[in-house]
Amino acid sequence: MRNVKLTIEYDGTEYAGWQRQPDVMTVQEALEVALERVTGTRPRVVGSGRTDAGVHAEGQVANFRTESDLRVDRFIHATNHYLPPDIAVVGAAEVPLAFHAQRDAKSKRYRYRILRADVRRPLRSRFALLVKRSLDVDAMRASTEMLAGSHDFAAFASELFRYETTVRDVHRAELAEVDDELHFTIEANGFLYNMVRSLVGTLLWVGSGKLTPEEFRRVLETGNRGGAGPTAPAQGLCMVAVFY
Amino acid sequence: MRNVKLTIEYDGTEYAGWQRQPDVMTVQEALEVALERVTGTRPRVVGSGRTDAGVHAEGQVANFRTESDLRVDRFIHATNHYLPPDIAVVGAAEVPLAFHAQRDAKSKRYRYRILRADVRRPLRSRFALLVKRSLDVDAMRASTEMLAGSHDFAAFASELFRYETTVRDVHRAELAEVDDELHFTIEANGFLYNMVRSLVGTLLWVGSGKLTPEEFRRVLETGNRGGAGPTAPAQGLCMVAVFY
Repeated sequence: MRNVKLTIEYDGTEYAGWQRQPDVMTVQEALEVALERVTGTRPRVVGSGRTDAGVHAEGQVANFRTESDLRVDRFIHATNHYLPPDIAVVGAAEVPLAFHAQRDAKSKRYRYRILRADVRRPLRSRFALLVKRSLDVDAMRASTEMLAGSHDFAAFASELFRYETTVRDVHRAELAEVDDELHFTIEANGFLYNMVRSLVGTLLWVGSGKLTPEEFRRVLETGNRGGAGPTAPAQGLCMVAVFY
Repeated sequence: MRNVKLTIEYDGTEYAGWQRQPDVMTVQEALEVALERVTGTRPRVVGSGRTDAGVHAEGQVANFRTESDLRVDRFIHATNHYLPPDIAVVGAAEVPLAFHAQRDAKSKRYRYRILRADVRRPLRSRFALLVKRSLDVDAMRASTEMLAGSHDFAAFASELFRYETTVRDVHRAELAEVDDELHFTIEANGFLYNMVRSLVGTLLWVGSGKLTPEEFRRVLETGNRGGAGPTAPAQGLCMVAVFY
């Protein structure tokens, strides 16, 4: 028995997210179906974490166990042969049997793209949120910088879940201007459900003047979910990398 | 009667190109259908030039005549309301009745994106050609620089058409490395059918060592179609701008 770690890129537009569910197509299931064609057995693929419907990945990581004796680098092209065009395995490595893509993840990096334009732009609308109103980028950046370090992100947690703790360590949080886009990048040891999209929704409130950076700080410090902005739409979000 | 100039962005993946044709969906027809919803009359939309099936545009330009008294900037959002998500009007201006988007175009700029990677990358495969083999970028750049100026591009012309002249003036030709991509940009007073894609196919021969830059120069100078490389696939090509 071997354990294989895969790095996966996908355009999430057409999928009901990562995790296998009845009656809808998911990235996990597409991958399991393709790996069955390659190895002869349907594996259980463990992802580093779920991505929601419409969220993309440049560097999702997953692992699966197999008795196949295929050379490990061959898993890339063999699996891609059976995957749909919007999903690809971009890396494969053999790892110790104990490796677990979810439990062993030390941190993950996400990026959210905000397109600042007056009109929708079809070449980018699959991958960025269009924001037509003008944004105070300095205020958004000041608020973004408050995220670095260890914080209780209760204000940005979906109420659907109970967590042992809602404290997360943010290793990096930055807002970059890239031509007519803003790229919000955040790397942390873990994320609450919808945390990145909730942060982006709240940062957009700051950008619109609906919250000052000081009010943003209070929402972060008090953990008051009611003070946070709406969950930003899925299409701007991309799981960039997972670190082990 | 008024004459309205539109700037249009589209993801060409799902279209049989710009030009209206029976039994297939084209960008021109989608635009005419949407403008009929806005103005009450189906206009004839004149594009600056055709784009082939699968080719994209950031700045296609077109014009149409209308008796509508809609304020000209309203054409943007009103038309987008009826357009599919992969096409958008991004600019509108009233122009003299004599303006003709095709005849009056002074020059056009195209960009072709080449993705240098070992594996296909779903987040970019709609918009770039994947090239897995290693490329000699210096040789490609040296060849690209030969294109500037006035040349007979007969070697890069589709044989399907007869032209009065196959001489075109290239105002700008450059090859830029952008992360793991090569961006070939060319601006000229006009283009022969498939000229950009034929140039890219031939530059890829240079990049692979199948042609030297000196041999590339001879193909350009002799106009020998047999010496040029294949037509590169549509998805890497984008009409960036049209100048009047």
